[in-house]
Amino acid sequence: MDDNGVMSERESVKIGLLGCGNVGSAVARLVVEHDDLLAARAGAPIEIARVAVRDLAKVRDAPISRDRFTDDPESIVTDPEIAVIVEVMGGIEPAFTLVATALKARKPVVTGNKELLASRGVELFEAAEEAGVDLLFEASVGGGIPLIRPLRESLAGDRITRVMGIVNGTTNYVLTRMTEEGTSFAEALAEAQALGYAEADPTSDIDGVDAAAKAAIIASIAFGAQVTVDEVHCEGISSVTADDIASAHDLGYVVKLLAVAEGADDEIAVRVHPAMVPEHHPLAAVRESFNALFLEGDAVGELMFYGRGAGGGPSASAVLGDLVDAVRNLAPGGRGATIGKLARKRIRSIDDVVSQFYVSMDVADRPGVLAQISGAFGDHGVSILSMQQHGLGEEARLSFVTHRAREADVRATLRSLDDLEAVQTIRSVLRVMGEDE
Amino acid sequence: MDDNGVMSERESVKIGLLGCGNVGSAVARLVVEHDDLLAARAGAPIEIARVAVRDLAKVRDAPISRDRFTDDPESIVTDPEIAVIVEVMGGIEPAFTLVATALKARKPVVTGNKELLASRGVELFEAAEEAGVDLLFEASVGGGIPLIRPLRESLAGDRITRVMGIVNGTTNYVLTRMTEEGTSFAEALAEAQALGYAEADPTSDIDGVDAAAKAAIIASIAFGAQVTVDEVHCEGISSVTADDIASAHDLGYVVKLLAVAEGADDEIAVRVHPAMVPEHHPLAAVRESFNALFLEGDAVGELMFYGRGAGGGPSASAVLGDLVDAVRNLAPGGRGATIGKLARKRIRSIDDVVSQFYVSMDVADRPGVLAQISGAFGDHGVSILSMQQHGLGEEARLSFVTHRAREADVRATLRSLDDLEAVQTIRSVLRVMGEDE
Repeated sequence: MDDNGVMSERESVKIGLLGCGNVGSAVARLVVEHDDLLAARAGAPIEIARVAVRDLAKVRDAPISRDRFTDDPESIVTDPEIAVIVEVMGGIEPAFTLVATALKARKPVVTGNKELLASRGVELFEAAEEAGVDLLFEASVGGGIPLIRPLRESLAGDRITRVMGIVNGTTNYVLTRMTEEGTSFAEALAEAQALGYAEADPTSDIDGVDAAAKAAIIASIAFGAQVTVDEVHCEGISSVTADDIASAHDLGYVVKLLAVAEGADDEIAVRVHPAMVPEHHPLAAVRESFNALFLEGDAVGELMFYGRGAGGGPSASAVLGDLVDAVRNLAPGGRGATIGKLARKRIRSIDDVVSQFYVSMDVADRPGVLAQISGAFGDHGVSILSMQQHGLGEEARLSFVTHRAREADVRATLRSLDDLEAVQTIRSVLRVMGEDE
Repeated sequence: MDDNGVMSERESVKIGLLGCGNVGSAVARLVVEHDDLLAARAGAPIEIARVAVRDLAKVRDAPISRDRFTDDPESIVTDPEIAVIVEVMGGIEPAFTLVATALKARKPVVTGNKELLASRGVELFEAAEEAGVDLLFEASVGGGIPLIRPLRESLAGDRITRVMGIVNGTTNYVLTRMTEEGTSFAEALAEAQALGYAEADPTSDIDGVDAAAKAAIIASIAFGAQVTVDEVHCEGISSVTADDIASAHDLGYVVKLLAVAEGADDEIAVRVHPAMVPEHHPLAAVRESFNALFLEGDAVGELMFYGRGAGGGPSASAVLGDLVDAVRNLAPGGRGATIGKLARKRIRSIDDVVSQFYVSMDVADRPGVLAQISGAFGDHGVSILSMQQHGLGEEARLSFVTHRAREADVRATLRSLDDLEAVQTIRSVLRVMGEDE
């Protein structure tokens, strides 16, 4: 911004855009709308010179003349005129080959592709490191919420110990409706689909697969470790019932789908599952389709970043923040923050992960039952923090909250409970985020 | 981090620390504790070579040998061996002269000094720009919460329209106690003092002056404008009563001290005052001494950053993030994000600021009174959204929430109401953050 006069005379930096869907066309619109702002901040005007799409016939809501479109993305990443690649096409191939080719040709890449990074990020980070160019990916997690940059740069002098996120808007919308209106999972999901918050096939959201990909990327950056999506223990929300939500409420909790990554020196634990969150915790206030990342650092204490986790505008905002960075770093000697070499750390087995649990079951209402059940917990070293009985006779139900216990011990307890004649059904099992956590 | 072997042989970068109180000694401890992490991230080992303090006799909880201390800060900023200055001494002078001298000598400066930036930031930003070195100040607002970097870098491609923050921990603690325990302002303040959340003389916190300094810095960065603390309209929380909090609760709100900055092309509005925040708004969930910044951008939509706004650890974490940046930028050709030239924009008079208001008054309970009172609102063009009566006879009280109205018109309304014989006392006037805002 120091010298507008000089800047406007500078040649524009030519961007190659791979993909022109929801996010890509929002990027193209913002580049035109905010041209002066971007030129001032990046140190040179930015121009979308070429765009690769699969279907050339499709009409795009983007201010780019038709002659800049191609259906040959390879020709863009090898074009010597193109200085920076923005990849928002999604999916693993051909995105991987294109991004790798661009990096090898020393073109910085900005990507919003979470599947790509969660599966093959390690190779791409290494390729970027080798070529000495930027690989920036703020839009890949949490839409427009600045997460990657704060993790990489603002907290560069601190040691992060744990990260917990609500990183999928569809499931958070469904759980919010269930919580605030008492609707069933099926009703809430249908509502989300009607409003466009859930896809026609919502499997990847509902089963936690989308959240697991984001958890892998977050864990990689927060702990400098190689983590891929298939190493993330993953449970979705389809088994969460209106009953669970009501019981959580009675105990002072709300149910959220959490992505959790914890780190020690040479081991990390990464998982996605529904959990009961204390109602005063900041994550409990994240409603509707909003996302948030809550983290704990040695020095900084607790931090939370909140915002729109998806959508063309928010994701495009993140892409442009990265693009400004990449263009500024094209100046002689320029180079942004690097990911550095991701270490191969041990991934803790889910069996060894320790947390509190909520367990609710239908039981025979007769003397001695509580003793049998408590015995089953005790046999596996799982100690009980609190117990509540609801209903009587045929309708009797017992709910327990445990102290912190190993996952494997809790599973063994559940098997023993299942074998007890007095236990009719185990209705639900949910992890509980402790008040002190 | 690309080549640890080479790095460990590199000469360390020598830091001059101005001030060694709470934050300064936490910085010194972190530099020693996280030395490897910092060296890897900054590209060279970091060493606190010299420390300036006022009182050499005082014992410091910092791992720095006594011979590195001096009571002559000038000798540090002019020392050719010192590559980067960290200023955490506070106050305007001698900090201003020292920082200006350092910048002129082309030494990058990291500061956590909000008074300094809120009063004389414009001059210092210009000095940094002229010298072509970094002036970084993440710790000056919101303690450890990454705010300045996201505003400057992550949102570089977006246009921010409004920022609202809870930026003072003491007042937020007091309001939280009043809200959750129904205590009076005086009781809550005494509790905050007993717990160390409030200073012995809490005036600067309670009157909003501390928040106003932070509002000036945030507005400067969010809108690229020159704003100083004396241009910020400022009201504190000492007039907020237990009654106000209870009435807010009945209407579905909580009372928070907000710093608000709104921007248009050539005009900005900046103010600090208590306000009623809808209980579902993310800012309403910011409890105790936590801080948060909520912002709205054209593309990104709503964002919030939450965390510890004060304390040695959090502030030191922010200083170190900046320090890593400054050291990395010492490499040939390196240069971080610049603030650029701050524009001189019009500051909107508080008279012209538009918001919703809550007004509560004791009235004579007789026919015709409501008509007179509504008339007073209507005469000044202030339209009423809702009205509630509490009590009867001598105890009658009316509470109004207005539609959005100009501040000056509301003040004129209040004067007219004061003149009405039927209005005994105007008990409280609070701004209301609309549900749609």
